[in-house]
Amino acid sequence: MHTAPMQKLEPAKRLGLVVVVTGYGKGKTTSALGMIVRAVGHGMKVCLVQFMKGDLHAGEYDGLKLVAPYVEHHLTGKGFCGIQGNPYPYQEHRANPQEAIELGKEKMLSGEFDILVCDEINNALRLKLVDLPQVLDLIESKPPNMRLVLTGRDARSEVIDRAHTVSEVNEIKHAYRQNIEPQPGIDY
Amino acid sequence: MHTAPMQKLEPAKRLGLVVVVTGYGKGKTTSALGMIVRAVGHGMKVCLVQFMKGDLHAGEYDGLKLVAPYVEHHLTGKGFCGIQGNPYPYQEHRANPQEAIELGKEKMLSGEFDILVCDEINNALRLKLVDLPQVLDLIESKPPNMRLVLTGRDARSEVIDRAHTVSEVNEIKHAYRQNIEPQPGIDY
Repeated sequence: MHTAPMQKLEPAKRLGLVVVVTGYGKGKTTSALGMIVRAVGHGMKVCLVQFMKGDLHAGEYDGLKLVAPYVEHHLTGKGFCGIQGNPYPYQEHRANPQEAIELGKEKMLSGEFDILVCDEINNALRLKLVDLPQVLDLIESKPPNMRLVLTGRDARSEVIDRAHTVSEVNEIKHAYRQNIEPQPGIDY
Repeated sequence: MHTAPMQKLEPAKRLGLVVVVTGYGKGKTTSALGMIVRAVGHGMKVCLVQFMKGDLHAGEYDGLKLVAPYVEHHLTGKGFCGIQGNPYPYQEHRANPQEAIELGKEKMLSGEFDILVCDEINNALRLKLVDLPQVLDLIESKPPNMRLVLTGRDARSEVIDRAHTVSEVNEIKHAYRQNIEPQPGIDY
C-alpha cells in the first residue's frame, strides 16, 4: 500500500536526551522497551539495567535476546520491595540497586553504549533503595551524546527538572481491576 | 548480581485483552513496540499495522526487522494528515487507513497471529480516516484469545468502554518545546 519514497530525518544537532517515564499506568517499562527497538534500528548500542525486576520471568527477557548483539541486559532486582509475598528483607533489596547504579554509571561512561535505560530507577529511589544524590550524579555525569532513560512511578521533581522529555502514564482502566490476572505478552 | 531462581507466571485463564494507549505525551507507539518485544519473547506472532506512519523513516522499522520471524509489519500511512508540509490531499490520506483497517481485521481473523497492534488508529479515527463503526466492529470481531492494541491520541469513549486496559500518556515536558529537534532512537 505504501508507495511514496521514505524520507530520512537527521537532526542538525544530535543530542543525548534525558527521558523520564513516570506515572501509575501501564506503559513505562514497555515504553522503554520501545525506545530500545527504535535505538537498535538506528544501529545504536543499548545498556538496560532493570532495578526492580528479576525474580519473575518476563517476555522482554527473551524478546531482547533476539536483538542481543545490540543490547546488554542486566537484571538486578529481587522483585518489588514491600509487596505481599516478596520474601526478601530490605537490606537485600537495597544491595542490588546499589550495585546496579554503580554498574549503570560505569556502562554509561565506558564509551560502549549510545543509550542507557535505568528501568524502575524512580521507584527504587522512592523506596530508598538508591539515594537522590546518586541519581542526580548519574544524570550529571552523562556524556553529551549519551541518551539516558529513567522509568518508574513517582519520579522526583529534581529528576524531572534535569530531563528533556517527561511523560506521565496514567491509568484510565486496568484489567487487574476487573479481576483479570496479568497476561503474557501484554503485562509481562 | 541476580542469583534467586526465576519464577514463571502463568495465568489460570489466558485472555486476549484489548489495550488502548492514548494521550498527548511521548510513549504511545513506543509502548506498543515494547508490548511487541514482550510478545515475541513469549513466542507469539505479532501483526503491526501503522495507520499514520510511513513517509518518514523511523528506527522501529529496522529494529523490528531483527525480530522479523515473529512480526509482520504493515506501514500504511502517508504521514500525519493536516500537519504542515504534508502534501497529500484528504482523500489520499483516507484511502490507506481504509485499506489498513480491512487488512487488520483479515489478519486478526486469519488465525496466524496472537496479537494485532493498530498503531495510531485512534488518531486516524479522530481525523475521519476510519469510521467509528469500523473500529467497533474490529474490536467486537476479536477472537477471545487474540490480543488487540489500539494506540493514538484522543481515543473515543466508545473504544475505551470496550477495552480492558487503558493508559493515557500525558506530556509533562517535551524536548521539542526546548527547540530540540526529534532525535533518533528516542523520538523516531
